[in-house]
This record gives sequence, structure tokens and C-alpha cells, in this order.
Amino acid sequence: MVDPLSSMTLRSIGIVRSDFKEPTSAHLELQTITAEIEIDPQLNEALDELEGFSHIIVVYWMHRAVFDKNHLKTYPMGNMSAGLKGLFAVRTPNRPNTIGLSTVKLLERRGNILKVQGLDAIDGSVVVDIKPYIPGYDSASDVTIPEWVKIGE
Amino acid sequence: MVDPLSSMTLRSIGIVRSDFKEPTSAHLELQTITAEIEIDPQLNEALDELEGFSHIIVVYWMHRAVFDKNHLKTYPMGNMSAGLKGLFAVRTPNRPNTIGLSTVKLLERRGNILKVQGLDAIDGSVVVDIKPYIPGYDSASDVTIPEWVKIGE
Repeated sequence: MVDPLSSMTLRSIGIVRSDFKEPTSAHLELQTITAEIEIDPQLNEALDELEGFSHIIVVYWMHRAVFDKNHLKTYPMGNMSAGLKGLFAVRTPNRPNTIGLSTVKLLERRGNILKVQGLDAIDGSVVVDIKPYIPGYDSASDVTIPEWVKIGE
Repeated sequence: MVDPLSSMTLRSIGIVRSDFKEPTSAHLELQTITAEIEIDPQLNEALDELEGFSHIIVVYWMHRAVFDKNHLKTYPMGNMSAGLKGLFAVRTPNRPNTIGLSTVKLLERRGNILKVQGLDAIDGSVVVDIKPYIPGYDSASDVTIPEWVKIGE
């Protein structure tokens, strides 16, 4: 068996190409923009039949984020009136592992290029996994969220 | 700026405690079982207000999976009649980065222990991130999936 801790090093499987060059909290804007993911051509075959899904989950590395262990709490979306929240209760890039998840619409696959809509990752982000979005597995029903999440939208 | 490739090493933030000891494709069964996630006590504060969310996304490392780059295609859920699919079109553990995503119900937070329902991770899996599940951001509408996904359920 592999020692999990020694093997937990991620390899790049692709790179995000987007007009978004700097981190932003303008999520409404991000929902409409299109971006491209350039997958390592050696993994081209691994994308086969992904185009049968309307949506995918992009798992990426927030390459400009650095974890500050002295700030385990933060203001959600910079909203100070909401009060401080634990970093696991928000989507801040300041987390022990700077992994981002973004559920996006898959517009087109062209060889090793995925054209997507709604990607919440800046240009140059390192893609580490792509998963098909499967309703019932990736979605939840009877969901409740705190009131302060709505404040930040 | 940090070189992304040199810094893409994950650290454990917690461990899964579950009655599921071996990998299974019995996803219906997994939806009902409860499991516990024991978060590093040093990160306790980072969980504050997570309990306001009914659901969370557990990002974990499939510690027993080893990537076989000679098998970029696989049968979905072991279903050979569906034909071979690229590994990014399925949720197989055989992927370049053996990251698992599981959307689960958060039943209880007790200090650094999260009691959850529906966790698709075997006992001992290394947790690398916890994110609040936010409808509209993590869920998609007008979703289509291939017919062969339904075959495998």
C-alpha cells in the first residue's frame, strides 16, 4: 500500500485560459463568461465521451493563493457586517489546500480543449481533475444555507 | 509569486472514520450510511459556522488508488456493455490525481468532529478540504447526462 502522505502531490493535467486575469468576487459576471481549459495532450483519450455531459466539475489549484494559518476565520466575500466565519464555512482561497471547485457548463470539446461557461478560476490556474456533473450525486435536495451567504451575493 | 508546481503538495486536514472499509460501487447504500470526519484539532476554529449549512462537499484523497497511465479509458461502474469511456467522463478512482468529491449531509458538528451522511469515501481516506454546499453555485440546471450513466446506477 502507498503511504498516503508521501503521495499527495498533485500533477497538472491542464491550464485555464480565461479573460479573467485577477481574482474577483464578481460571481454573477463569472457565470456568463466563457473560458478554455487546455488539457495535456497526452491525456486526450481520457476525455472521450465527456462531451455527453452538459456540465462538468473543474477541480483546480488556486496557484496564487498562499495559506495563512494565522487567519482561520475570515469575512465572507469581504462582507464585514456578516461577521467572521471559519474558512471551511466560506469559499475563500485562504485554505490549507488551495483547491477550487467550479461547476461549469461544457460548451464544446475540441480535441484536448474544453470550452466552458461559468468557470470561477483565473487565467493560468492549474487544473488537477475533471469530473462529470451527475445530478443526485453532485446535487443535494432540501438544502439550507445561512442567511449571511445571501448577503454576500 | 509561488511556483505552482513546486507547491502542489496536499496536507491532510482530517481523516474519514467509516464502516466502509473497502471500495464499493454500492452508491445507493452509501447514501444512507453515516460517517465521521475527524478534523485536525488545530483547525477547529476554521469550522466555525459550518453547521449553518445542511450540506457540505468533502474533498478527499483516495489513499488506496494508484494512477495507471496505461488505462486512460475504463468501463463505467464496471459495466462492460456500456463500452469504454475516458476516465474524466467517469468517477473512477484511476485518475491522474486521486481526488474524490462527495456532497454529503452535515448531521452534526461536535468540536472537530463532523458527522455526515452519504460519504462516498472509505475508512481512513485523507480529507484535504471541506466546502459549504451552495445551491446555484455547486448545482446546475438544465443538466443532461449520457444514457449509459443511468445504466450503471
